[in-house]
Amino acid sequence: MTDPALVHAALLERGLTVGCAESLTGGELAAMLSATPGASGTFVGGVVSYSTEVKRRLLSVTAAEVVSGECAVQMAAGARDLLEVDWAVSTTGVAGPDLQEGRPVGTVFVGLASSDTARFVRLDLDGDRDAIRSGACAGALDLLLAEVTRG
Amino acid sequence: MTDPALVHAALLERGLTVGCAESLTGGELAAMLSATPGASGTFVGGVVSYSTEVKRRLLSVTAAEVVSGECAVQMAAGARDLLEVDWAVSTTGVAGPDLQEGRPVGTVFVGLASSDTARFVRLDLDGDRDAIRSGACAGALDLLLAEVTRG
Repeated sequence: MTDPALVHAALLERGLTVGCAESLTGGELAAMLSATPGASGTFVGGVVSYSTEVKRRLLSVTAAEVVSGECAVQMAAGARDLLEVDWAVSTTGVAGPDLQEGRPVGTVFVGLASSDTARFVRLDLDGDRDAIRSGACAGALDLLLAEVTRG
Repeated sequence: MTDPALVHAALLERGLTVGCAESLTGGELAAMLSATPGASGTFVGGVVSYSTEVKRRLLSVTAAEVVSGECAVQMAAGARDLLEVDWAVSTTGVAGPDLQEGRPVGTVFVGLASSDTARFVRLDLDGDRDAIRSGACAGALDLLLAEVTRG
């Protein structure tokens, strides 16, 4: 998994700030982005939009399905606006144990938004609830690091 | 440490919802509140207000010092209003490695707000950054469970 310290270093070197919006990961992604000593140099904050209502009201999500790439992108864009950050990364999906919106456990979408980028990646993860949450965080960090270091 | 599943069960039994506002714990508290399968029955969401600016803008914090009981209570009250939950719990303090506002590493305040309660508890924690973050989460869960089961 991408070391959160590498993400922090890549952002710091470029003078960029980051925030996040999380559904199934429930705060774990923010915990990773804030784990590195000095994290406040890049990490501004996050929204854990666990309920659909919070996704819609705070992050302006309009996607009909919350387990979708469209929702992931809207969550990231909403967090970027709300937190006033350069980059925002998001997670939505099915941690289990039950299906959601007819999608199988392990279906995850991670999203990313900056001033000139909006994209998502779909992950199909195996394992129990903890493994799926961790895998979703890893996917979000991978996507963020790849995009930040692309330029 | 209080098992998050016990907190979830106590809230569910009483038909209560919960949210959180976090500074030094950076998302770990939300991750605990969302860890239990079926967490969406009680956990609505959280705000990781890592920067002072996010504390002030999203949570209406006016306290001059962010490492304070006053700030912890204002964060909880702000999260309760923003997330529209019955109870909100908060954390603020110094995870280290550096002092903050002249307060030593390990100084932590956890806060709690409901429609008729607002209180905070001060913790003086030992250990490294990870231990202090975990200790702050434990303190927040302890406070929440004690207050929810008091009635």
